[in-house]
Amino acid sequence: MATRIISASSLLRRLGSWRQATVGPAYQALAVGLRLLILDGRLPLAVRLPGERSLAKALGISRTTVSAAFAQLENDGFVQKHERSGALTALPSASSRGGALLTHDRESGVIDFATATMPAGPQVHAAYAKALAALPAYFPGHGYEPLGCREFREAVAERYRREGLATSCNHVMATHGAQNGLALLLRTFVRPLDRVLIDHPTYPNAIDAILAAGCRPLPVPLTPSGWDDEAIMAAMRGEAPRLAYIIADHHNPTGLVMQATTRQRLTTQATGSDTIIVYDETMRDLWLGNEPGFPKPQDAHHIVRLGSMSKSFWGGLRIGWIRAHPDLIKKLVEARASLDLGVPILEQLAAAELLLDDGGALDARRTLLRGRCDYLLGIVRDALPSWRAHRPEGGLSLWAELPRPIATGLGDKCGELGLHLAAGPRFGIGGAFERFIRLPFTLPGKEMARAVSILANVYRPDHSTGRPNYRNRSRDVADFY
Amino acid sequence: MATRIISASSLLRRLGSWRQATVGPAYQALAVGLRLLILDGRLPLAVRLPGERSLAKALGISRTTVSAAFAQLENDGFVQKHERSGALTALPSASSRGGALLTHDRESGVIDFATATMPAGPQVHAAYAKALAALPAYFPGHGYEPLGCREFREAVAERYRREGLATSCNHVMATHGAQNGLALLLRTFVRPLDRVLIDHPTYPNAIDAILAAGCRPLPVPLTPSGWDDEAIMAAMRGEAPRLAYIIADHHNPTGLVMQATTRQRLTTQATGSDTIIVYDETMRDLWLGNEPGFPKPQDAHHIVRLGSMSKSFWGGLRIGWIRAHPDLIKKLVEARASLDLGVPILEQLAAAELLLDDGGALDARRTLLRGRCDYLLGIVRDALPSWRAHRPEGGLSLWAELPRPIATGLGDKCGELGLHLAAGPRFGIGGAFERFIRLPFTLPGKEMARAVSILANVYRPDHSTGRPNYRNRSRDVADFY
Repeated sequence: MATRIISASSLLRRLGSWRQATVGPAYQALAVGLRLLILDGRLPLAVRLPGERSLAKALGISRTTVSAAFAQLENDGFVQKHERSGALTALPSASSRGGALLTHDRESGVIDFATATMPAGPQVHAAYAKALAALPAYFPGHGYEPLGCREFREAVAERYRREGLATSCNHVMATHGAQNGLALLLRTFVRPLDRVLIDHPTYPNAIDAILAAGCRPLPVPLTPSGWDDEAIMAAMRGEAPRLAYIIADHHNPTGLVMQATTRQRLTTQATGSDTIIVYDETMRDLWLGNEPGFPKPQDAHHIVRLGSMSKSFWGGLRIGWIRAHPDLIKKLVEARASLDLGVPILEQLAAAELLLDDGGALDARRTLLRGRCDYLLGIVRDALPSWRAHRPEGGLSLWAELPRPIATGLGDKCGELGLHLAAGPRFGIGGAFERFIRLPFTLPGKEMARAVSILANVYRPDHSTGRPNYRNRSRDVADFY
Repeated sequence: MATRIISASSLLRRLGSWRQATVGPAYQALAVGLRLLILDGRLPLAVRLPGERSLAKALGISRTTVSAAFAQLENDGFVQKHERSGALTALPSASSRGGALLTHDRESGVIDFATATMPAGPQVHAAYAKALAALPAYFPGHGYEPLGCREFREAVAERYRREGLATSCNHVMATHGAQNGLALLLRTFVRPLDRVLIDHPTYPNAIDAILAAGCRPLPVPLTPSGWDDEAIMAAMRGEAPRLAYIIADHHNPTGLVMQATTRQRLTTQATGSDTIIVYDETMRDLWLGNEPGFPKPQDAHHIVRLGSMSKSFWGGLRIGWIRAHPDLIKKLVEARASLDLGVPILEQLAAAELLLDDGGALDARRTLLRGRCDYLLGIVRDALPSWRAHRPEGGLSLWAELPRPIATGLGDKCGELGLHLAAGPRFGIGGAFERFIRLPFTLPGKEMARAVSILANVYRPDHSTGRPNYRNRSRDVADFY
């Protein structure tokens, strides 16, 4: 990817009269001026700054001053120097503030291979900056928006309309993420001891939410190729679940996508019954091949969709939504006050910005994930040839099958060595999936390589069918981040 | 209060080379430059701008250009013109964007006298701006902070240390507000059918949360002067509640403050028992007299405190905290994932800013509330002389006692006339408090006057003991906002 460059004269224009902006030495004033441009998005990220000499000339100051300003910015994390591409604009990273924020905590040496999440792209900061400019309009109000603010609900509705599902903001309610949406659905529509149908395996926190609500999970096994229509219809008919929680698009952890025919049968089966079908669409944006032709979403009174910003954009943007028939939305809003009084307005405004125009964030994320997925698949196949892992249709992880049911023990041993794993049983109930491990491809290449190296060492050769020839490959590991 | 003034030369310095900053006509460039200064806090709010003539001279442009820029800013809500004090910097208000955000929705004519909340002060925007500058340090991380981020937890801990309660950030967990904190406590420590002791009356949403958790509320009546020690101790001993939810500081709705001796007896009584005592401190900052000498907070393993930013600062800052023994915090964090995955980082950073230095926001709020409380008391006593209302020690509302148990009917009739009321029974269980109405003093004077006028007209003279002499007073109503 070619580096974007900003000329000295263009930078001069954006800087304005930087020298008068603050008191103190000139280099500090210049650093402050540049920092503000980066922070409010007038100077994009990863842009190459002019050379010190040409900038000094354009600004009519000494090169020493420019040099000192760049050093200050580099120290504060707003400039990163690269051997080939020069001084690039940046945002301070967690490591520069010494926090333990990275998924791979360098100080402790622990690698978190149990969580499948990604850092924020630069678009997130720009969206927050725009949101902050729009926020004051809300200050005279009380700030409670139990349904969510109109900008956000409109942006979500537009997203569904683009997919061909007629949606107004009356179909949409803001939540603190998809998990919070599920908790609210359970509180509103389900009673203790009710049955809740789930994919098996499924998202672990969803199982926890169902159990915490006092309900009985009704697991329907997934086959390697997807949903078993007959099994799911039989469970719907025979057990009359009050709610069905299904991850139809880039299923977590398997990456599968549900067929249009299965969706149709589910809708038909649920019509006239008491079952609410909840589709968790958290991973929907994260396809790994070409843009899929998702089946046009079906509308029906009892179909509910959960969305989230956290996997598509950033986990720190803690906001999601429920898309449902306005009758259901009304009941959800009434029930909400027993859990919380609403979602922060600023988060909603930032999310609305990203939903309406993500500035290429999703494309960039998918490209990155595609590369990391292929890379992880490659090193797993090399280092652990007896394991079976396929390229998923989407999502953030591989669902690797082991030759023997030893996932929990393997996870425990890796944990002692500083590698946190999500063993298969975490994704099921009753001790299922001891033959499986979820391997996220969200970490940089080097860290995935370290993780697989530890895995291969713990998973001794006597368990594997081939020699662990992993070491050769680890030498030319690319860092994908 | 004297208006702060900014000179033309000082403004010139802050503006920098505004003309080069954007393309388009000069007046627009100037408006953009000024708008940015206001938005990022370099130009404070309610500052008087220089006269058009002197600014034009200083900038070396025509007065027409300055005039057009000011007109643009006024139109966008960033400048407010006042007859005496000239053009003041401002932030756009909800009315300027036409939203239905005001507590008193001018379009519909409805007055919300059921909600006790306040608009945001200018410090809130400044805190968000600072938080936005600090946010990028979190971007490389996954953004999930189930416990809360360190800056926020440290700021809350410091707040308790100032009050004399030894607290580290290990005692603190971030929540989506106090109500969310209560929901999490109920989920973690209480089972269906457990008893939960409550003040009677109490905060309505707390009752809802307790019922939604399947628990049995155990109401202990408050007397007009406060808590009944014998009643509360008898309930603690005899009924062994699993949790006691108490609003000890500026009780909602009565405004009462719990005596130190009662707190001491509660702590002693609960020690060694299974009862967790939860103090909701949402209203603690909002005293109406001189700063009270709160009893030093007691520490004990089973005492939990709920805090919130929403009443002290703004309801749109949807964040609060739980302060508890680290053992309890650990259990709460484990249980959290069944409800949500954490609180937005930006909200936490903004809240930390305000907690550490509120820029006088709380003092200003208390002064405003003091005036509005006295004003409301005055017009209620004039218009409804048979009602009994006292000046509360703190909080946001009067708890008015009617001569007869007619609150629900009164509320219904007022509702038909566009005045939403919170009738007494909403604050209790089993139909109690039909003799009471909560009257918030959070609205501007004119709106409180309109509300009381409607109340007095509905509450007919045959119910009152005196003549409704309200009309005379309504002429010289002050607008307190």
